[in-house]
Amino acid sequence: MNQGRGTPARADGDPSGTAAFADHPFIRACRSEPHERVPVWFMRQAGRSLPEYHRVRGEGTILDAIADPDRAVEITLQPVRRHGVDAAILYSDIVVPVHAIGFGVDIVRGVGPVAPEPFRSSADLDRLRPLDPDADTPYVLETVRRLVAALDVPLIGFAGAPFTVASYLVEGRPSRDHGRTKALMLGDPTLWHALLERLTDIAATSLLSQVGAGAAAVQVFDSWAGALTPAQYRRFVLPHTRRLLEMVGETGVPRIHFGVATGELLDQMAEAGADVVGVDWRVPLGRARSRVPAGVALQGNLDPAVLLAGVEVAREAAREVLADNAGHPGHVFNLGHGVLPDTDPDVLTEIVRLVHDEGRVDGGDGTSADGRR
Amino acid sequence: MNQGRGTPARADGDPSGTAAFADHPFIRACRSEPHERVPVWFMRQAGRSLPEYHRVRGEGTILDAIADPDRAVEITLQPVRRHGVDAAILYSDIVVPVHAIGFGVDIVRGVGPVAPEPFRSSADLDRLRPLDPDADTPYVLETVRRLVAALDVPLIGFAGAPFTVASYLVEGRPSRDHGRTKALMLGDPTLWHALLERLTDIAATSLLSQVGAGAAAVQVFDSWAGALTPAQYRRFVLPHTRRLLEMVGETGVPRIHFGVATGELLDQMAEAGADVVGVDWRVPLGRARSRVPAGVALQGNLDPAVLLAGVEVAREAAREVLADNAGHPGHVFNLGHGVLPDTDPDVLTEIVRLVHDEGRVDGGDGTSADGRR
Repeated sequence: MNQGRGTPARADGDPSGTAAFADHPFIRACRSEPHERVPVWFMRQAGRSLPEYHRVRGEGTILDAIADPDRAVEITLQPVRRHGVDAAILYSDIVVPVHAIGFGVDIVRGVGPVAPEPFRSSADLDRLRPLDPDADTPYVLETVRRLVAALDVPLIGFAGAPFTVASYLVEGRPSRDHGRTKALMLGDPTLWHALLERLTDIAATSLLSQVGAGAAAVQVFDSWAGALTPAQYRRFVLPHTRRLLEMVGETGVPRIHFGVATGELLDQMAEAGADVVGVDWRVPLGRARSRVPAGVALQGNLDPAVLLAGVEVAREAAREVLADNAGHPGHVFNLGHGVLPDTDPDVLTEIVRLVHDEGRVDGGDGTSADGRR
Repeated sequence: MNQGRGTPARADGDPSGTAAFADHPFIRACRSEPHERVPVWFMRQAGRSLPEYHRVRGEGTILDAIADPDRAVEITLQPVRRHGVDAAILYSDIVVPVHAIGFGVDIVRGVGPVAPEPFRSSADLDRLRPLDPDADTPYVLETVRRLVAALDVPLIGFAGAPFTVASYLVEGRPSRDHGRTKALMLGDPTLWHALLERLTDIAATSLLSQVGAGAAAVQVFDSWAGALTPAQYRRFVLPHTRRLLEMVGETGVPRIHFGVATGELLDQMAEAGADVVGVDWRVPLGRARSRVPAGVALQGNLDPAVLLAGVEVAREAAREVLADNAGHPGHVFNLGHGVLPDTDPDVLTEIVRLVHDEGRVDGGDGTSADGRR
C-alpha cells in the first residue's frame, strides 16, 4: 500500500522523533511507563481560542493556512509557547489528504467540510487515488520538519480515521445522524469496504510521511465513530482502523486513537491497536480504564465546556479528572474534545499549571506496556 | 407546585387512560409484567416520514399545527392507522409549554427551537411563570381528549425534561456542545437550580394535565442530557427530573425517560424514578439492562439510520435488537432516536410486523415490577 510514500519512516537509525523524546513524560505516558509528572496537551490547542492565531491566520480557508508552512508552523507553536503544554500537534484537518488528491472537498467557514459532489458509487473510487506525500502535500512535510527543528516537546502527527473521513465524503457536509453514511455502509458493504480501504491507505501514507519527517507520535481522529453501534463498528470500521494502526505501528511511535461518544467502543478502539485511547468527558477515566486492556493508556477527559465557566470551576473539574485517574501512569491529560472557540486561553494555561503541580503518577506498579507491542 | 393545573389527574375512579389499558402489552411491558407480545412504537412516528402528514401539515410552524386540534389529532392517528403500532404519542414539541406562557421561543424550519432573547440572568425567571393548562394550552387538552376517544391503543403524553428545555432557552438555538448551558450551570448554580425548578413545575403541570385528560403513559424527553458527565448530571439535573417523575408518578401512569448518548447515565435515569428508560442504539440492550435495577424496563433501540438501508437490512437489525433483549418482559421496542425524515414508511410497517411476529416475551420469571412503586 505504500506506493507514493515519499519519505522513509526509518532513516539513519532514528525511526522518528520518538527516539529523541523516549524519556519525555508524554511519550512515557503513552506507553504506560513510569514517569515524573502527568503530561498535558489540548485538542485544538492551536487555533480559534488564541488571539495570536487570529493575527496570523489570514484570509482564505483553513486549508490555505495549512498549505502555508510559515503560517502552519507558527500556529502549531503558539500554544506550546503560551501554555507550556507537553506536546504539539500538527496544525491540520482530517480532509487535508483527500483535498490534496483532488476528491473535491473544501472547508466552508461556519459549516465545516463540504463535498459538492459526495461519494455515491463505485465510479467515485477513482477520485481517491493513492496519496504521494512529496508531490501532494509537500507543505505538510516541510511544516513537520521545521516544527521538529524548533520544538523541545514531541510533535503529534495528525490524520482522520477512515470512517470519519468517509462520513464527510458520503454526506457531503457535516451531519448529525450520518444517515447516508450508514445507508451506504449497510446497504452496499462491498463498496463501503473498497472506500475504507482507499482511505486507510491514504491515512497510513500520510501518517508514515509525517513520522518520517520527525513526528514523535500520531493521533488518529475517528471523531464520529461514536455514532455507530458496537456491532456496526466491529464489522465495518475495526478491520480498516486496525490495518491503519498496524502500518503506523511499524515505525514504533505511540498511536493515539480518538473519538467522541465512544463509551461503548473503547474496547474495540484499543483492540484496533491503539497505545492510547482518547476518552470524551462522558466516561469517567476509572470506568474507561475497566473497558481497555491493561497497558493501554487513556487520554482525556475534561469537558471542554467547563472551561467557559471560569477558572475556579475549571480547576475543580481538572482535579476530578486527576482523581478519576488515580495516579495511573498511562494517562495523558487532555480535554474530552477540542477547545471551544470562546475559551479564555488563560484558563487553559492555568489547567496546564495545575496538572503539572498536582498531577500524581504512581510508578513501578507493573502497568508498564514494555514489550507489549 | 401544581398551581394552575386545571384538570385533576384522578377523577371518577379512573386515574388516567392507563386503567382502560392495564392489560395492554405496551402498559404491561412498561411495568415489566408478563404479556403476550413485544409492543412497538417509534419516536417521531407521526410526522416527517409520512406523505399523509405532509398533506395535512399546512403552512406555518409546527407549533401552529400543534395548536390546531383537528390537525394534531389527525397527525397523531396517522402512524397508528398505517403501521399498527401499539401506542400513539401526542404530536407535540418540547417547547410547547414555554412557548405558550410567552417566554419567546419559536421553531424555525430547518433550524429547530430558537429563542431570540435567550435566558441569561435572574430577571429572565419572570418570563417563566407557572403554566395554566386550561388557559395556556387548551388545544393540548382538547387534542388529548379527542385522541383518547378515538384510539384503541394507549396514548403517551409528551414533555421535555428540565435540562433539555433549559438548554434551548439558554443557548437560544440548537447547539452541538451546549457551552452556554454548561457555563451557566457550573458558573451560577443558584440561578441554574431556580431555572430548572420553574421548568420542572411547568413540565409536571403539563404532564399532569395530559394524564388528567386521558393519557395512559408519559415520555419525558431529556434528549441532550447525554452531553453531561455523570457527576454533572447527578448534581445539576437528577434532583429536578426526580421531582418531576415523582409528581407524575402519583397518577400511576408509566413514566418513560429518554435521552441520546446516555450510556453512562442509564443508572441515574432509572434512579430518577423512571418505569422505562429509553436507550439509544449505542448501548446493546443486554448491556443497558446491567446498568439499571431489576424491574426497570427498557425502550429501544434500533438505529434509525438502519432504516435507510432497505427493508432486509432493517429486518436483520431489528432481529438483533430482539436477540439483545433475550425475551425480557420489560422491553418496549422502539428506535434509539426519532424516525429520520427520509425513512420509507413501508420499512417501518414491516418492522412492526416483524416485532409482532418474532418478538418473544418470557413471562412469570419474577421480573414483574408489581408493587415496586
